[in-house]
Amino acid sequence: MFAIAITFAGRISSIKASEIREILKITEQPNIISFAGGLPAPELFPVEEMKVVARKVLEEAGRQALQYTTTEGFTPLRQKIAQRMNAKFGTAVTHQKVLITSGSQQGLDFSGKILLNEGDVVLCESPTYLGAINAFMSYGPRFVEVPTDDRGMITEELERIIEKTERIKMAYVIPDFQNPTGRTWSADRREKFMEIIGRYEIPVIEDNPYGELRFEGQSLKSLKSLDTKGLVIFLGTFSKTFCPGYRIGWVAAEEEILEKYILVKQGADLQSSTIAQREIAVYMEMFDLDSHVREINSVYKARRDLAISTMEREFPGSLSFTRPEGGLFTWVELPSHINAREVLVKSLEREVAFVPGGSFYPNGGHENTFRLNYSNMPEDRLVEGLRRLGSILGEFMN
Amino acid sequence: MFAIAITFAGRISSIKASEIREILKITEQPNIISFAGGLPAPELFPVEEMKVVARKVLEEAGRQALQYTTTEGFTPLRQKIAQRMNAKFGTAVTHQKVLITSGSQQGLDFSGKILLNEGDVVLCESPTYLGAINAFMSYGPRFVEVPTDDRGMITEELERIIEKTERIKMAYVIPDFQNPTGRTWSADRREKFMEIIGRYEIPVIEDNPYGELRFEGQSLKSLKSLDTKGLVIFLGTFSKTFCPGYRIGWVAAEEEILEKYILVKQGADLQSSTIAQREIAVYMEMFDLDSHVREINSVYKARRDLAISTMEREFPGSLSFTRPEGGLFTWVELPSHINAREVLVKSLEREVAFVPGGSFYPNGGHENTFRLNYSNMPEDRLVEGLRRLGSILGEFMN
Repeated sequence: MFAIAITFAGRISSIKASEIREILKITEQPNIISFAGGLPAPELFPVEEMKVVARKVLEEAGRQALQYTTTEGFTPLRQKIAQRMNAKFGTAVTHQKVLITSGSQQGLDFSGKILLNEGDVVLCESPTYLGAINAFMSYGPRFVEVPTDDRGMITEELERIIEKTERIKMAYVIPDFQNPTGRTWSADRREKFMEIIGRYEIPVIEDNPYGELRFEGQSLKSLKSLDTKGLVIFLGTFSKTFCPGYRIGWVAAEEEILEKYILVKQGADLQSSTIAQREIAVYMEMFDLDSHVREINSVYKARRDLAISTMEREFPGSLSFTRPEGGLFTWVELPSHINAREVLVKSLEREVAFVPGGSFYPNGGHENTFRLNYSNMPEDRLVEGLRRLGSILGEFMN
Repeated sequence: MFAIAITFAGRISSIKASEIREILKITEQPNIISFAGGLPAPELFPVEEMKVVARKVLEEAGRQALQYTTTEGFTPLRQKIAQRMNAKFGTAVTHQKVLITSGSQQGLDFSGKILLNEGDVVLCESPTYLGAINAFMSYGPRFVEVPTDDRGMITEELERIIEKTERIKMAYVIPDFQNPTGRTWSADRREKFMEIIGRYEIPVIEDNPYGELRFEGQSLKSLKSLDTKGLVIFLGTFSKTFCPGYRIGWVAAEEEILEKYILVKQGADLQSSTIAQREIAVYMEMFDLDSHVREINSVYKARRDLAISTMEREFPGSLSFTRPEGGLFTWVELPSHINAREVLVKSLEREVAFVPGGSFYPNGGHENTFRLNYSNMPEDRLVEGLRRLGSILGEFMN
């Protein structure tokens, strides 16, 4: 083995491996009970339907499906996405405002590339999504965490921070069933947030992978639907409502902004998979995505109920955790002297995995927190894993 | 319509729309005879085979195929790529040195992200691939074009330039059937290039989308196979030998370098399509990709022969153009006073498209050149289009 003589670009030193992806590698061992990923339940994937769809796409448009397409994406899919957004999230977008991306992770990376000069400030919830931190990090921003409670970003704190912070370039938020906490912003916080953001003209990245995964309660207005100044850039994905394996997501924004995303997409990978785009469009024509989402939600609701009731029974009584109305995650806070990374080490010995919470805070700290996913494990393993974890937590608390 | 109050990042102003992609939009009109794209011939796509493959993947591993996978990619596909590279390009890589990307365009973008600080120098052929210029451009480098002739980069010029240039960070080259010129580097130039690059320890991006599309003559050693210092980063793709619609390519590099690409891939889009990766792997198991490539090559060879003989007959006698031994393109040089963009305007009026050559020179100039693709049009339209173009060129030369 020779020594490599290559010097990498400065930005590379600020990118760290995603702790989730590293833990996911461990969880590939079949014995592991994993609460680590944000993985959808594979037994719910429409495998039989996709056999029909794949055949139809290749039969009716095989040559076009295997060829290059435009950077913007397959127009019928963009139209279906625009219609669906308008129906589910109260927006008024057309397909011209939709760019197909390779998952919403790509929308995050492009947002950093388009908006962030080195030293610019990203406002975010505290905690926030690890994958967004990593995507933005390579553009060298500063993160300013806005205090956040069970009803979302605390708007008085937001305004206070905006007043005293220079070079704010974007606010990155996940108002629906947030990753990692499972929290959902209240209606009044959404209104107030948009009022403040509009007043200061700050671009907003509204990351919405989980919005359709509501098990109970009323759907709330998306930020994009409250946007009167064209400031909100909405990121969506089929990874949670359909399947992640196709890597199809989208960016919806005003055309003046979207054209920058299209330019960046050209340089980044030309376009997303033609055949995947056509297959999802044909699935949406032939089958009922709404009924598929209802089926997912009924399963996830049962798992959430089971997870919460098991945690209430098996976890030490003094621990607090969120009780989400939808999405994939609950968030646990330990007493401040307990480090969740140490709990993880013990937990992996007992073949149970989760993600320590510290990574979700871009400026560090909060090592006494962790994230639990309840969507991926069947019910017996869910209960068994939480029982083991409860007993380990009991040992740490004594 | 409201005015957008967003200020974009500095890098965005240096990215321009790909002229090819813009021209491709025009060429979607069915009447246009297009020599513009680098599009493979869709009538050669293995549509029937992919019906069998798609069914098999969903039947045998549907749930895994629709789920997330690792960032590195699907191991059996990485193994098949390593084997194929070793067989076709004389390398000695294992799957641990292969990362699956979304086309080789993504490998270009990542190379810029990993290697280039603002103001760093990229050495490239003159002309070079437009998509690479665009991908690198957003990282703010300077391009230094190394004079290039029919046998490749002129190594005396390369050495002279290296001696007097500071901050050289990479050399970007396409030694096989180059885009845009169709030229292939000679064996002695390859050896000499690697000797110089090794002496100065300059990382090399070897972009090789067309290497397997050889119609005649001997295959030559890839730069990666001559690499004794781990400096060569090889970019490959299934877009030209198989189909572009899946967007599956790869980066092959020493593990110490590849781990940076994996980190960047995590932030950029987590992973490439799971199902596309599995489908290509199963296609390679069930069918014979070599025989598919032979079939492609026999069709493209016939089209190249027809294109060249038609150009010899129909183009003004004083024009020079390349006679490639493989790949998709020939390159035309006009007298220096003729601007190919003006020729294109006339040509589009007669429903014939091509790409003016100026865009392939990162530092501008050379507007008297253009690129012709001969792989995408069936033979009757190929002849008709070149006849019209010849008559337009005749008008310009008089």
